Amino acid sequence: MKQFTSVNDIADINQLVEAAIALKNDPYSDQQLGKNKTLGLVFLNPSLRTRLSTQKAALNLGMNVMVMNMDKEGWALETQDGMVMNGSTVEHIREAAAVMGQYCDILGLRSFPKLKDREEDYSEDFFNKFIKYCGVPVVSLESATRHPLQSLADLVTIRETWKGAAKPKVVLAWAPHVKALPQAVPNSFAEWMCKAQQEGLVDFTIAHPAGFELNEDFTPGAAITHNLEEALTGADYVYVKNWSSYQDYGKVLPFPEGWMLTHEHLKVSNDAKVMHCLPVRRDLELSSEVLDGPHSLVIHEAGNRLWAAQAVLKDLLQSLS
Amino acid sequence: MKQFTSVNDIADINQLVEAAIALKNDPYSDQQLGKNKTLGLVFLNPSLRTRLSTQKAALNLGMNVMVMNMDKEGWALETQDGMVMNGSTVEHIREAAAVMGQYCDILGLRSFPKLKDREEDYSEDFFNKFIKYCGVPVVSLESATRHPLQSLADLVTIRETWKGAAKPKVVLAWAPHVKALPQAVPNSFAEWMCKAQQEGLVDFTIAHPAGFELNEDFTPGAAITHNLEEALTGADYVYVKNWSSYQDYGKVLPFPEGWMLTHEHLKVSNDAKVMHCLPVRRDLELSSEVLDGPHSLVIHEAGNRLWAAQAVLKDLLQSLS
Amino acid sequence: MKQFTSVNDIADINQLVEAAIALKNDPYSDQQLGKNKTLGLVFLNPSLRTRLSTQKAALNLGMNVMVMNMDKEGWALETQDGMVMNGSTVEHIREAAAVMGQYCDILGLRSFPKLKDREEDYSEDFFNKFIKYCGVPVVSLESATRHPLQSLADLVTIRETWKGAAKPKVVLAWAPHVKALPQAVPNSFAEWMCKAQQEGLVDFTIAHPAGFELNEDFTPGAAITHNLEEALTGADYVYVKNWSSYQDYGKVLPFPEGWMLTHEHLKVSNDAKVMHCLPVRRDLELSSEVLDGPHSLVIHEAGNRLWAAQAVLKDLLQSLS
Repeated sequence: MKQFTSVNDIADINQLVEAAIALKNDPYSDQQLGKNKTLGLVFLNPSLRTRLSTQKAALNLGMNVMVMNMDKEGWALETQDGMVMNGSTVEHIREAAAVMGQYCDILGLRSFPKLKDREEDYSEDFFNKFIKYCGVPVVSLESATRHPLQSLADLVTIRETWKGAAKPKVVLAWAPHVKALPQAVPNSFAEWMCKAQQEGLVDFTIAHPAGFELNEDFTPGAAITHNLEEALTGADYVYVKNWSSYQDYGKVLPFPEGWMLTHEHLKVSNDAKVMHCLPVRRDLELSSEVLDGPHSLVIHEAGNRLWAAQAVLKDLLQSLS
Repeated sequence: MKQFTSVNDIADINQLVEAAIALKNDPYSDQQLGKNKTLGLVFLNPSLRTRLSTQKAALNLGMNVMVMNMDKEGWALETQDGMVMNGSTVEHIREAAAVMGQYCDILGLRSFPKLKDREEDYSEDFFNKFIKYCGVPVVSLESATRHPLQSLADLVTIRETWKGAAKPKVVLAWAPHVKALPQAVPNSFAEWMCKAQQEGLVDFTIAHPAGFELNEDFTPGAAITHNLEEALTGADYVYVKNWSSYQDYGKVLPFPEGWMLTHEHLKVSNDAKVMHCLPVRRDLELSSEVLDGPHSLVIHEAGNRLWAAQAVLKDLLQSLS
Repeated sequence: MKQFTSVNDIADINQLVEAAIALKNDPYSDQQLGKNKTLGLVFLNPSLRTRLSTQKAALNLGMNVMVMNMDKEGWALETQDGMVMNGSTVEHIREAAAVMGQYCDILGLRSFPKLKDREEDYSEDFFNKFIKYCGVPVVSLESATRHPLQSLADLVTIRETWKGAAKPKVVLAWAPHVKALPQAVPNSFAEWMCKAQQEGLVDFTIAHPAGFELNEDFTPGAAITHNLEEALTGADYVYVKNWSSYQDYGKVLPFPEGWMLTHEHLKVSNDAKVMHCLPVRRDLELSSEVLDGPHSLVIHEAGNRLWAAQAVLKDLLQSLS
């Protein structure tokens, strides 16, 4: 693997999932691989799980880690080309990325969408320029449109917990929120589940109210419905997540009643396990009864972020040498 | 030891003091103990001494350290249960703590009181919930009502420097300030000194103006006076510290003249050593002449924060395995 | 070497340059030297290159690194003596520096000038007090008037790339900007190049518009001109950098046309290489065509920050023991 920014960077998702599970059982055997290698983690936005799990994953591999909160500790970055930099930005991404590549063997980058201009966000201009100019392998710590470390951890969690004979029915279920959230997590989850479905690993359904359709590039082969109950019927896993409208980009749309998942909803399911990437707003996105009850996998799932990151970094380290 | 949040978590304070002094003389012998163990330091408030000394202590023990400035790098946390999270908080402490426990073997936490609602602060609700949900041993880096790493370092400093035949007279002396400060340091110091007094190690007196009485739970057996000169008479150690009123909680009360310690005050003492937890406001809380003179132990005392933290972490690591 | 704050701290600049180049070819051989030694990096201002390169340099040497963003994570510092601290500052530099010296074997410090009071900035009061009170060797990560790690990396870059028989002509060329920038980088570059000129390593010229004269203490022996074309004629290296007026201290002065370096300017040069310390404002300070073209050394130069820092830290570590 030369970079990790979407499911398309991976030759064999199944093999990567197995690698993550193997690392969970034997975390410290690769410390020679990372010796004297440095991971730089560049954050333009807040991070808890991603920050800590990726750092820990690198330490498990014997790497050094340097964290850079670019928004707070560094200089305001310019991304546009061909303009006179006489405003508030102090450094161009061309230089900033190239310089970070001088000191790091692998770079992780988090940069959220602005949710103002859909074209700009979906072009992944910032992310792509960073990759282009830094000159070293890049791991996405969440970009404007994707969060692949989360999706890998999600797939690991499903693999670990699924004991059924047939393949599980996985449902991505939209949830309410008060703010306009990015589509990165649902895009990425959909993209990974569609790939897993192609490989015969899962059956994948997406449920959301009208107006919350995801970009079709991320949902090839997914069953899509506006009827939550229909989606949940026979479900083995429910992945709960809010996202804002792709059509009315950046807007907070009114939404119908009944989309916050409760125990009542789960009655039609196959005793479904419930997942969420966190952070979650309790009793707005997802009911406390579900979060605190036996259906919830959310902490287990967050724990798997570590092994997902470690599998990805190990693969990238192997490609370096 | 399973956690370190107050003197009550410790079986034998004397033994812990001796352990800290032993580590000072031989800091790097336990690096196998901490190998592949991770300490997460979670700050909701500023920190200089605690941040650096605890980090260094963990590194001396061979541990990995991850620092999380929760207030700046993470998500705004909710602590109340049973409410719809449709406001400004993004993540509940139930999830945040549990997730951090997934990546760390030991967690340190700093969280100051809000000084608005005494009941709330003294319930240590935030701290207790963090401990309950994170699932790993927790070290207090200062909570709403206590700062035990400071108190342990203070006791180490007294033990190291006391050369007398009898036990020393230790005085906690209130000092002026312009702001309403927490009671955490004096509460904790009092709690530790009362315990040390019970064990025959010190004689302990508290001096403060009327209206600045500490919560009695922290001062069992202490001599308490409003007369500073009386307290300082024959004193061997004076621990200078401001705190705001426990009775008129959160208020900045007017205070009488004469409480800022000078050389003049020390004349009645037994050539007393002067201590302060730092940061200290010069010539408001404590005179420059004392801070810069031969009576002051404040830098030595701050240096001992390292060995206090290392003794505590070593004990917790031993309990892990 | 006992500290690294200016060229005057170095016995032999040539030897230090050679040491940096040797480390570039063999970065990991000194890890026993730094074992159980701790570098504290204290930032009062933003930093990208300095933060990451110095951290990585210390890790290459086997050291532990602790980063302290004093402006964000710590307490507001007082530097004046003899005043009652009843305002907004919480801790005096006397205590803060001394405490950091308790936990670290070497300290790095970044503190920019305020550009309000020239006397104050040029007294390096803050920096000198920090050095005085911390009690351990200090590396400047950029002070009010100097940035010696940058200058060492610059000299390393010239040494590595110069293939001519005679000594190279090096030009420090003033560049436009919209803000009042410190003189630290040009002061330091001038100071180092004047020293290198004395030792017969380079010919050194400074070009700037009238009104932008540097403090003469930093420019002994330099040729100084207001004519950019004259300076660039026959130049082998052009070091582009804005600085604000030393005479009209802290002001943004109007400046003449024609000082932003383009390919056109370079025609009179000896196919000059172009350097800049970064961050650079594109097409304001320096044209994109130069930055993106074959003349530019800026990324290579930034990469050398690592080896400069490592050479300095190695020397300081050797002096410790």
